[in-house]
Amino acid sequence: MKRNLFLSLLLAPLCAMAGTVQSPNGNIELKFYVDNNGRPTYEMSYKGRPVVLPSHLGLELARDKHASLKDREHDLMDGFRLVNEKTSTFDEIWRPVWGETATIRNNYVEYVATLSQPWEDKVKPEDPTADGLKLVKHEREIIIRFRVYDDGIGFRYEFPQQKDLNYFLIKEERSEFAMAGDHTAWWLPGDYDTQEQETQETKLSEIRGRFREAVNWGNSSVAVFSPTGVQTSLQMKSQDGLYINIHEAACLDYATMHLELVDAETKTLSTKLDGNSNIYTPVPATIPGVSATAPSASATVPGALASGSAYPLPKPFTFVSHLTPDATGLKGAMQTPCETPWRTVMVSDDARDMLSSNLILNLNEPCALDDVSWIHPTKYCGVWWEMIVGRGSWHYTNDYPSIKLDQIDWTKVKPNGYHKANNENVKRYIDFAAKNGLDEVLVEGWNVGWEDWANMWKRDVFDFVTPYPDFDIKMLNDYAHSKGVKLLMHHETSSSTQNYERHIEKAFQLMNKYGYDAVKTGYVGDIIPRGDHHYSQSMNNHYLYVVKEAAKHHIMVNAHEATRPTGICRTYPNLVGNESARGTEYEAFGGSRPDHTCILPFTRLQGGPMDYTPGIFVTKLKEWSDNPSWARITIAGSLALYLTMYSPLQMAADLPENYEKFDDAFQFIRDVACDWDESIYLEAEPADYITVARKAKGTPNWFIGGKCDENGHEAVVRLDFLDKDKKYDCTIYADAKDAHYDTNPQAYTITKKVVKAGQTLKIKEAPGGGFAVSLIAQ
Amino acid sequence: MKRNLFLSLLLAPLCAMAGTVQSPNGNIELKFYVDNNGRPTYEMSYKGRPVVLPSHLGLELARDKHASLKDREHDLMDGFRLVNEKTSTFDEIWRPVWGETATIRNNYVEYVATLSQPWEDKVKPEDPTADGLKLVKHEREIIIRFRVYDDGIGFRYEFPQQKDLNYFLIKEERSEFAMAGDHTAWWLPGDYDTQEQETQETKLSEIRGRFREAVNWGNSSVAVFSPTGVQTSLQMKSQDGLYINIHEAACLDYATMHLELVDAETKTLSTKLDGNSNIYTPVPATIPGVSATAPSASATVPGALASGSAYPLPKPFTFVSHLTPDATGLKGAMQTPCETPWRTVMVSDDARDMLSSNLILNLNEPCALDDVSWIHPTKYCGVWWEMIVGRGSWHYTNDYPSIKLDQIDWTKVKPNGYHKANNENVKRYIDFAAKNGLDEVLVEGWNVGWEDWANMWKRDVFDFVTPYPDFDIKMLNDYAHSKGVKLLMHHETSSSTQNYERHIEKAFQLMNKYGYDAVKTGYVGDIIPRGDHHYSQSMNNHYLYVVKEAAKHHIMVNAHEATRPTGICRTYPNLVGNESARGTEYEAFGGSRPDHTCILPFTRLQGGPMDYTPGIFVTKLKEWSDNPSWARITIAGSLALYLTMYSPLQMAADLPENYEKFDDAFQFIRDVACDWDESIYLEAEPADYITVARKAKGTPNWFIGGKCDENGHEAVVRLDFLDKDKKYDCTIYADAKDAHYDTNPQAYTITKKVVKAGQTLKIKEAPGGGFAVSLIAQ
Repeated sequence: MKRNLFLSLLLAPLCAMAGTVQSPNGNIELKFYVDNNGRPTYEMSYKGRPVVLPSHLGLELARDKHASLKDREHDLMDGFRLVNEKTSTFDEIWRPVWGETATIRNNYVEYVATLSQPWEDKVKPEDPTADGLKLVKHEREIIIRFRVYDDGIGFRYEFPQQKDLNYFLIKEERSEFAMAGDHTAWWLPGDYDTQEQETQETKLSEIRGRFREAVNWGNSSVAVFSPTGVQTSLQMKSQDGLYINIHEAACLDYATMHLELVDAETKTLSTKLDGNSNIYTPVPATIPGVSATAPSASATVPGALASGSAYPLPKPFTFVSHLTPDATGLKGAMQTPCETPWRTVMVSDDARDMLSSNLILNLNEPCALDDVSWIHPTKYCGVWWEMIVGRGSWHYTNDYPSIKLDQIDWTKVKPNGYHKANNENVKRYIDFAAKNGLDEVLVEGWNVGWEDWANMWKRDVFDFVTPYPDFDIKMLNDYAHSKGVKLLMHHETSSSTQNYERHIEKAFQLMNKYGYDAVKTGYVGDIIPRGDHHYSQSMNNHYLYVVKEAAKHHIMVNAHEATRPTGICRTYPNLVGNESARGTEYEAFGGSRPDHTCILPFTRLQGGPMDYTPGIFVTKLKEWSDNPSWARITIAGSLALYLTMYSPLQMAADLPENYEKFDDAFQFIRDVACDWDESIYLEAEPADYITVARKAKGTPNWFIGGKCDENGHEAVVRLDFLDKDKKYDCTIYADAKDAHYDTNPQAYTITKKVVKAGQTLKIKEAPGGGFAVSLIAQ
Repeated sequence: MKRNLFLSLLLAPLCAMAGTVQSPNGNIELKFYVDNNGRPTYEMSYKGRPVVLPSHLGLELARDKHASLKDREHDLMDGFRLVNEKTSTFDEIWRPVWGETATIRNNYVEYVATLSQPWEDKVKPEDPTADGLKLVKHEREIIIRFRVYDDGIGFRYEFPQQKDLNYFLIKEERSEFAMAGDHTAWWLPGDYDTQEQETQETKLSEIRGRFREAVNWGNSSVAVFSPTGVQTSLQMKSQDGLYINIHEAACLDYATMHLELVDAETKTLSTKLDGNSNIYTPVPATIPGVSATAPSASATVPGALASGSAYPLPKPFTFVSHLTPDATGLKGAMQTPCETPWRTVMVSDDARDMLSSNLILNLNEPCALDDVSWIHPTKYCGVWWEMIVGRGSWHYTNDYPSIKLDQIDWTKVKPNGYHKANNENVKRYIDFAAKNGLDEVLVEGWNVGWEDWANMWKRDVFDFVTPYPDFDIKMLNDYAHSKGVKLLMHHETSSSTQNYERHIEKAFQLMNKYGYDAVKTGYVGDIIPRGDHHYSQSMNNHYLYVVKEAAKHHIMVNAHEATRPTGICRTYPNLVGNESARGTEYEAFGGSRPDHTCILPFTRLQGGPMDYTPGIFVTKLKEWSDNPSWARITIAGSLALYLTMYSPLQMAADLPENYEKFDDAFQFIRDVACDWDESIYLEAEPADYITVARKAKGTPNWFIGGKCDENGHEAVVRLDFLDKDKKYDCTIYADAKDAHYDTNPQAYTITKKVVKAGQTLKIKEAPGGGFAVSLIAQ
C-alpha cells in the first residue's frame, strides 16, 4: 500500500475558512482556522492582548500490527479541511454538592469546528488478474470543540465513530500553547510518577537552566522526561501583568498531560537528559508490531525540527502537550466515539480571577450520581502525624525481614511497642475529635502488611481487611459512633493496583459493615503492573474505577499520590479530596518554602481540592520528636490555610497534646466551616499572598483567611460583603508583632470585637505568617 | 561502594565438595559440585551414558534503585561455596482426583545442596571524621534441591529468607542443560505470546537454520526472541537412542521458561534476529533506576562470550534457560522465602517411558483443595466448530463499526442472522448431548461484546454476565438440566486481564446461579496491561488467581491460550484442561501435519491435559462450508485421539449432523471413558506412532487407541493386561484398507469379537490414521 495523503490535498485545495468568537463579555477572543498545511490552528487574546499566539492542534498516532487498525498509519496532524463550523451560547446555574459557592454559573460561547482529513491509498485489487493498483479513498472526520469563557477557554478533540477512525493508539498529543512572551512561570518538573516537588519560579527561558537543580532540590523527582518538561496546572504571569494558567479538565480515561517547552537553544523537544539516577529515559514502544515511529511519509515535511516527531515545531515560548506513557511508551488506546480531556487556558489581568474561576469545574460533566445525600464535608484528625514525624510506626512488628500475608499468625507476633494504630491511642484521638467537634478520625497502619509495604515490587502487599491484633475494629468503630464520631478508613495500595482491585469489593464491604463512609487511598512507590506510571491512561482509569466502585458503597474517596485532579469531582462528588502535590508531610521531610501555600491555590488547586492536612501548631518537630525538620509557618498562618486552601475535607493534623497547648488558637479550627455558600477572593498574588472571605454554608457567618510568603504582608479587608443589617462578633487570630515562621512561629494574638458591613480590617501578617478571622452574626 | 567479590574468594579458597546420587533403581546418576569459579554445576547420566554434561546453574539479578534492595547488585551466579549437603529418599503412593492411573508412585532420592556466597563491600563509615572505607561482610545462602527419579531429575533453586537476600529482581535465570550430542529435537520457536505453532523436527545444530522458516511456516508466531530460542517441553532423541525431555514443574508465581541454544556459529545467546514483522526485539528494562545490565565487576570474567551476559557460556548443544519478560523486560520479582519452579530432565531408552512418566506431577505439591467432590471428568460437545469453520458468528450484529458495552440497548440491535449461540441452536446441541450421554454443552458467543472483541487494545471488552438477546440463559440451563446435561460456560477475556479480574466474582456468581460448573477461558490477542506477555510471572499469577477464585465457587477451569501447564493440576485439580498448543481449530485455519498428534503427547501433554477438541469426522470442511481447509486425519484416527491425547475433558467437536452420518463410529465416542484406573503405553515413537491401553475408572473395561503419522503403522497389541478370568466384547474401529488422511479419510471398519488375556491384536493404521478398541468385560 502506498500512502498518498498529499496528492489529494493538491487536487482539492484547502478552503481557508476561519472562525472568530468572543466570550460573553467580550474580553476573550478566540480564532480558529486550518493553515496552509491543513493543520488546525488557534489563537487567543484577552482584552486585545495576545495570550496564545497561533498554535497547532493535532495528534500523532502509533502504527499497529493489526490489519484492522491500519487507519492508524495516518496521523491526525495535517491534511485537514474545515468542513463545518457552529457557534452557540450556553448559560446555566448549577449547584455543586459541596464547594466554595452554593451555585456556579456556567456561561460560555461554544465554537465547534468539524474537520475532514481525506486521503487515498493505492492497494492491490482483489482480482489477481487486474493490472496495477486500485485507488481507495478514505476520509476521517474529527471535531475540535472550543468553549470561550470570560476567564479563559477550553478545547478538546472529539472523534466520532466512523469507518476510517474506529480504534487508534496515540503516540503523542500535539496541542500547542504558544506564549506571547518570556513569562514568569511557577512550575514543577514534568514527571510521570510524582507531583510532590517544590515549585520553581523562573522565566520560561530559564526553565532549562533550572531544571537539574529543580530535580535535585530537596525534591522527590522520580521519572522526568525532558529538561523543559513541566506539569500542569502551570501558572504564569506576563511582563505586562496578565495571569495565564494552563491545565486540563475532565481527564478520565486518558493520560495526564504535561507541557514541554520548545527548547530555545535547540529548537527541539525531548532533548536528551544528562546523567542522573532520578532521570527517566523515555521508552520506545515495545509491543511487537506496534511502532511509535512517525509514518515515514510525514518525515519529509520540510522544516521538521523535532527529534521525536516529523512535524514542524513552532517558535520558542511554545508549550507542546506531552502525555504520560504506559509501560510500552504509548500514550493512549482509543475507541471512537470518544474525546480528549479539555485543555484549558485561563487568563485575567487580576490574579484573584485565577482563584475564583470555575472554568475547570464547568467543563466537567454534571453529577453522575443519583443519590448524593451521603456525601458530606468533613473535618478530621488522625493517627498519622506522629508516624510521619517518626515517633511511631505504621507497622506492628520488627521481627521479620519481610512478610507474606498468608504465612503469618499475627496473634503470635512480637509487637514493636510503638505501633500507633492501637486501641488506646485511637481512642485518645476519638475522644479528642468528639470533644472538639471533628467529624472523623483517620487511622493509618490499622491493617496488616506495613512491615515491608513500599518499593519492594511486592504485589500482594495488603489485603485491606485484616486489622493488626491491637486494633479492635469493631470496638473502635462502636466507641467512635457512641461519641458521634466516625473512623476514616485508610487503604495504602503501595501502587500495587492489581492487588487493590482484587480486594476492593471486600474492602468496601468491610467499611460498610463497620460504618466507615470515607477512605483515604495511597499510591506510594512504583506502579504494579511494573513499567506503568502514576498518570498514564490505565492508571487514570484505575483511580476512576475506585471512585465509581466506592460510590456504589456510599464511600467518599480521598486519593493520595493519585493523578492531579481535573475537576472530575463535579461528576463524581464522592471524590472529596486528592493529595497530588507536596503536602504537609514534607514539613517532616525537610520542610517546604514559606511561599508554598501561596502558590498551590494557583496551581494544584485549580483541578480540585487538596487534602493538604494543615494545622501544624508545634512547627519545630524536635520539640517533641527526634526529627530536626520544621514547618516554615506561624500558628496564625496555619489557621489561615483552612480558608486559603479550599477543601471539603480538612484535617487538624497536629497531635491532640499539641493543640491542647494552644487551645485558644485551636478554637478557630473548632469553629471554621468546610463548606461554603459564598467565597470572595480579596487579595492575591502568586507566591506572595492570598486573602479570601467565605460564608459558611447555610449560615450568616463569615470566615476570612490570609496567608503570605516569607516577606510578610499587610492585608486590607473591606467588610463590604457582610449583611448590612447585621452585627458580627469578630475574632481575629493574627501573628504577634514579632512573629516569624522561623524565629517566633508560635506568637499570635487573639482580638475580639464587634464589626459591621463597610468597616475595614487591616491585619499584619508576619514573614511566613497569616491570619484568620471568624465573623459570627449576632 | 566498591564490589569486592573476588577478593574474598582468594582469601578463602573454595572447598571442592561434591555430591553424587543415584535414582532408586540406579539408572540415573546425578553429580553436583561447585566449580573453580564458585559456579554451581551438575551432570546427569542414564545407565552410564551422559545425558547432561557439566552445566552451570545460577541467576542474574537486575539492579534496583531502592537502597533497601542494594543486595540485588550481586548476581547469584558465582562465588559460591558448598556448605552443606543432604541426601534422603522418599517413596509414597498418592491418588490423583482424576488422571491416567488411579494411583501414582512418587519415589525419588533427594539431594539438597546449601550454597553460600560471601562478599565484601567497602562503604563510607557513618562517622564522617573517620578515614577511608569500612569493610562490610555479607553472605547469602541459596539451596539447590535435586530429586532423582528412575525416569529423570528435577531441580529447583530455593531462596531462604535472610538479611542479604530478601527481595530481588531476576534479570535472567541461567540454568544450563548441556546436551551430549547433536540430538534430534521436536521444537516450537520460543515465543512470549503463543504456543500454537507446528512442531519442527531437526537436529539441534539445525535449529538456527530452520528458525525463520519455522516462524513463517503457516504458523502463528507473535513474539520470538532468539533464532535458537525454543519452547519446553522439548522432546529430543539422541543418535544412540536416548529419549530426553526438558520441561518444568510447578511454575506458579514465576515466568515460564524457554530454552535458548548456545549458537554454534556465534557461540552466543540472543543473536539479533533478522527483520520480520513477527519477530520480537527484546526490550531493555525501562523502570527508572532499575537496570538489567550485568554488574560491571563481572564483566571482567575471562572468557565471557554472551552478548547479553557477562558470564562465560558453555559449549554448543547447551541450552540456557530464558524466562518470559514483563513489560519492562525483567523476568521476575521475588521475595524470600521462595523458590523457582522445578526444571525437569526426563530420560529413557524407551520412548514409552516419556509418556507414562509422572515426574512432573510428582514434583508438584499435593492437592490444595479440601473438597474435590465437585470436580469430575467431562465429555462435552459445543456451539463452537461451526463458528471456527466460518459458518456462523460469535457476534450478534454487524451494525456497528465498534461497540461500547454500556452504550448499547441490545434488544434494539439488528441481529446478523447467523449468530450461533441462539436458543434454537443451543437446544439442538443439548438434545444431542442428552441423546449421546455427553455431560456438558459448551456455548461460545453467548455474551455481549463479540462485535469487536479481538486485537483492538480494548480493555472493557466483555462483562461476562450479559447474554445476547437470543440466548435465554435461564431457559437454556433449565432445559439442559431437565435432560441431565449442563451448559459449559465460556469466558473469552481477549487477554484484557484487568477487565476479567474486575468482573470475575460476578461472573462466577452468575455461573453458580444458573448451575454451570465449568468454564472455558480464553486469552486471545495482546495482553492488557499493554506490554506484558502471555507467559510472564504476572500472567502466570493471573491464571492461577482465576483457578483459585474458581475453586471457591466450585468451578472447573479449562484455560485456552494460557501458559503451558507444568503439572499444577495436581495441586489445583479444578484446572481440568488447557489449550496451550496448536489444537483442532487449526484444522480450519490451514490444517496441521498428520504427525502433530503423535508429537503432542511427548511435548505439550507432559505438563498436563490438553483440551485438544478432537473428533472431526467430516475432515474436508468444504463438504459443509466455504472453508477450503481440511483435517489431516482419518475417522479411525480421530477416535484414537480420545485415548492417545489424555484429558479428563474430552470434546466431541464436530457437528451433530456430521456425527449422525457416521453413527456407528460415533458409538466409540459415546462409549469411551475419560477417567482411568490404569494406562499402559504399548508402543511409542515421537512423531511416528503412539498406542495406549487404558482401563476405565471403576470398571473392568479397557479402551485402546493407536495413532500414527503420515506413513501409517501396524500396531501389535498384546492383551496381556486383561483380567485373566474374564472375556471381553471387543469392538475394533480401524482404518479401512484403502483409508488415507487425504484421499479416503472416512473409510473405516468396525469389527466385533470376543477376546481374552494373552491374545494379540494386529491392527493396520492408514497414513494419518489410527484405531480405537473398546473391550467391555462380559
